[in-house]
Amino acid sequence: MLPLKISEIANLIKGQLNISADLFINKLNRIENSIEGDLTFYSDERFKKQFDDCNASCIIVNENHIIIDNRNYIVVPNAYLAFISIINLINQNNSTNKTGISKTSVIGENCKISNLAYIGHNVVIGNNCIISDYTQIHSNCSIADNVNIGNSNIIYPNVSIYSNTIIGDNCIIQSGAVIGSDGFGFVEDKSNGSFTKIPHIGNVVIKNNVEIGANTTIDRSLVGSTLIENGVIIDNLVQIGHNCVIGENTAIAGQAGIAGSCKVGKRVRIGGQTALAGHLELGDDISIIGQSGVSKSIKEKGVYFGTPAKPQREAFRIEAISRNLPELANDIKQIKKLLNVKL
Amino acid sequence: MLPLKISEIANLIKGQLNISADLFINKLNRIENSIEGDLTFYSDERFKKQFDDCNASCIIVNENHIIIDNRNYIVVPNAYLAFISIINLINQNNSTNKTGISKTSVIGENCKISNLAYIGHNVVIGNNCIISDYTQIHSNCSIADNVNIGNSNIIYPNVSIYSNTIIGDNCIIQSGAVIGSDGFGFVEDKSNGSFTKIPHIGNVVIKNNVEIGANTTIDRSLVGSTLIENGVIIDNLVQIGHNCVIGENTAIAGQAGIAGSCKVGKRVRIGGQTALAGHLELGDDISIIGQSGVSKSIKEKGVYFGTPAKPQREAFRIEAISRNLPELANDIKQIKKLLNVKL
Amino acid sequence: MLPLKISEIANLIKGQLNISADLFINKLNRIENSIEGDLTFYSDERFKKQFDDCNASCIIVNENHIIIDNRNYIVVPNAYLAFISIINLINQNNSTNKTGISKTSVIGENCKISNLAYIGHNVVIGNNCIISDYTQIHSNCSIADNVNIGNSNIIYPNVSIYSNTIIGDNCIIQSGAVIGSDGFGFVEDKSNGSFTKIPHIGNVVIKNNVEIGANTTIDRSLVGSTLIENGVIIDNLVQIGHNCVIGENTAIAGQAGIAGSCKVGKRVRIGGQTALAGHLELGDDISIIGQSGVSKSIKEKGVYFGTPAKPQREAFRIEAISRNLPELANDIKQIKKLLNVKL
Repeated sequence: MLPLKISEIANLIKGQLNISADLFINKLNRIENSIEGDLTFYSDERFKKQFDDCNASCIIVNENHIIIDNRNYIVVPNAYLAFISIINLINQNNSTNKTGISKTSVIGENCKISNLAYIGHNVVIGNNCIISDYTQIHSNCSIADNVNIGNSNIIYPNVSIYSNTIIGDNCIIQSGAVIGSDGFGFVEDKSNGSFTKIPHIGNVVIKNNVEIGANTTIDRSLVGSTLIENGVIIDNLVQIGHNCVIGENTAIAGQAGIAGSCKVGKRVRIGGQTALAGHLELGDDISIIGQSGVSKSIKEKGVYFGTPAKPQREAFRIEAISRNLPELANDIKQIKKLLNVKL
Repeated sequence: MLPLKISEIANLIKGQLNISADLFINKLNRIENSIEGDLTFYSDERFKKQFDDCNASCIIVNENHIIIDNRNYIVVPNAYLAFISIINLINQNNSTNKTGISKTSVIGENCKISNLAYIGHNVVIGNNCIISDYTQIHSNCSIADNVNIGNSNIIYPNVSIYSNTIIGDNCIIQSGAVIGSDGFGFVEDKSNGSFTKIPHIGNVVIKNNVEIGANTTIDRSLVGSTLIENGVIIDNLVQIGHNCVIGENTAIAGQAGIAGSCKVGKRVRIGGQTALAGHLELGDDISIIGQSGVSKSIKEKGVYFGTPAKPQREAFRIEAISRNLPELANDIKQIKKLLNVKL
Repeated sequence: MLPLKISEIANLIKGQLNISADLFINKLNRIENSIEGDLTFYSDERFKKQFDDCNASCIIVNENHIIIDNRNYIVVPNAYLAFISIINLINQNNSTNKTGISKTSVIGENCKISNLAYIGHNVVIGNNCIISDYTQIHSNCSIADNVNIGNSNIIYPNVSIYSNTIIGDNCIIQSGAVIGSDGFGFVEDKSNGSFTKIPHIGNVVIKNNVEIGANTTIDRSLVGSTLIENGVIIDNLVQIGHNCVIGENTAIAGQAGIAGSCKVGKRVRIGGQTALAGHLELGDDISIIGQSGVSKSIKEKGVYFGTPAKPQREAFRIEAISRNLPELANDIKQIKKLLNVKL
């Protein structure tokens, strides 16, 4: 789609141009890296310095932005969203709707693969699988028996999907993700500390519009289903334990870990490297700041932080005071001296 | 194997049935999700509410459970273990002992692959490998040269096993795991901070009855072997550094990280997201609670928590008091006021 | 290359031999595991006990080491570096410079694959890719369209490289790594908490002499490039978010996570399981101890620790005093009693 004239871009995003001359844009770029020929945007004052130094051929700015130089601007109500809308246009033009089944793939017995689906090179699909319209399964993926994948999903290379997994529509699974591996469930023989594996005969169910990050792992349930509800977004290297339920529109950042049998509500925000201990419940609209360790169920809406996780205000207050611990300890020492006491 | 009559199930687990009528069970389910046709179990009073609301066609309960309604029960000494024994039966019936080598796999020179082994589609095996009886290697796995894999192992899709790895019997390796990658060892040039890689010519040795989780990584040793002893169970996304020795029947939960050259004892329990710094020793029968950071060797049996890890009782006591820090700080302020001192 | 006589090894490392007799060395080993026929080294007094018990056929020692027994020694200025130089020799002799393209690989249109490159079995390469001299791409890797890989790289099995990735020379990418997956960027609809994916049309650029660990993930940029500079070493299971820049000769240990748009300086050392929040800058020569959580930019050279990260000295002082919290709390209680006050 690129190159495009600045005037055409202004039209596409219904923005106001501050120049009459016109130029070609070759690529989109971040404000700190933009050079001649680039289009960028400026909407966050934390990047004021990068903005001042910016040599982009055109900068999209918010309408309250006061223009004091003669660089080229497109003025819109929301510069960030306008920039993203151009990305969306470029991305749409680049997308190809591949269909067909590579001859190098291996498809099991009794599968229903839509004519509108794409099965990439060296993909292995087991028996009794369903792959529906416009779903793309890229190279070197392994899909076991009895897997049902709906419409318009993108499954990137080297993904492993275990038997009986069910995936809805419009999901994206990034490379290296593992869906449906055995839950970490064992019976311990207390006499010698040895373990006997408990077979996991449940599965994983992923609803619609779900994104699953690279090398993320989601374990199958013992019985029943590990369930990822509509609209959930999961970043890279996240662990979701067996029997978990992750509620609608919940977001889980990188390297977070949800131990087995947790029930996470709707619109929950879980920060990176946060851990939930097993069998917990988180209510709706709860946010957990990164690196927290949640050791008890939380019902009340709000923001939480720390290991163990506490309401953010409490955690921050404790943290602030703990920075004064050396002074407090010294105060106590001085008071004791003053009072001439040995406690 | 399913459907089965309740009476047949009661026979299989040697339980007492509280009804004379009989019904068919279609599937096993967790208590909170069970519907008509399901079999479930109840053994933990934390799930009392779910039990009260449960519509399963049959519930397995412990023998001390007092039955006060006319739902269908099977009474046994241990409801949880009875339920698992049924899972085991179902799983056994579902298992197929695949054998044979897929034509789409690539086998190197001078390999000994048992006639009773199964090599899945698009598997790549290097030179001089041994794959013994009843071992299953599933699709898209890559196994390098000189790898020796014993009997009755299951290696799920997309696993990477580097050269010279030795695996015993009855192990399970979940998808995406990487066994034998290079250890993170470099010589630093202090003059400019640059690194020169140290080749790792050691290997990984995995003994018998070991489980390795999805996307877990185990690095090869510099020289000698990174060693995983009998009966070790490792969850998903765990990192085991080069030269580590993990003792018999030790369990390591998800996203834990063991830095290089650690020696972990027998029957150790390492919680999720816990880290061990390099070159540490943990004695036998030590438990580390999740998200801890172990910075020194620990010899004494017991439970430890925190970063840096301390005995659990000490860590919990400090944590409890730290919650009162705002009050303590205020106390000190008031005392100073009272004493009219500026310290 | 092995077996080798001790005298030959002494020659190779220009060391002094304390014996006149000669023996064959069969393998290199760590000091605690060495048996007859092994060569090992001793340079760190923490391993004094293992040294005393060591039955290796030869031990390399530092020149200040006083020999008090009649075991076989080679004396050199730096025993560790001498040992590594032998490893390097062995490794060099073992390396094979494979070239050629496996018939089981699938190569897209318009690719330039060097005659001196090696493309392993079941590798899938997209359209318009360049693979240069002496680069090895091992089995089951998936490389998307428009990827440019320079000279002398080793890419181990099951690696996924997304479209438009650029990799320089002399890099090593361990198995299961994912390069160029979509950044975790979404527009949130505040009315219902749902997310709309922002397409990521940027890429990943990896310069020269970079090592990337097993199952590590590096996300592509929204626009522009996620950039890994020369000489960066990254351990296993690390997450690098979209738009990050990682400076020259920086080292990142296992399971660390760098959130999106961070700018990390040169010669930075990031400990295992450490997290950086998004949009931070770390200056040059900064070290972050493992399991820290960096929540603000850090400019000043030095060592930092904790969540949130503080200068090491401050963090350790607070930690030391917090261990006395039970005593401090008791002191305050006693003082209040003494003063007969209720605060």
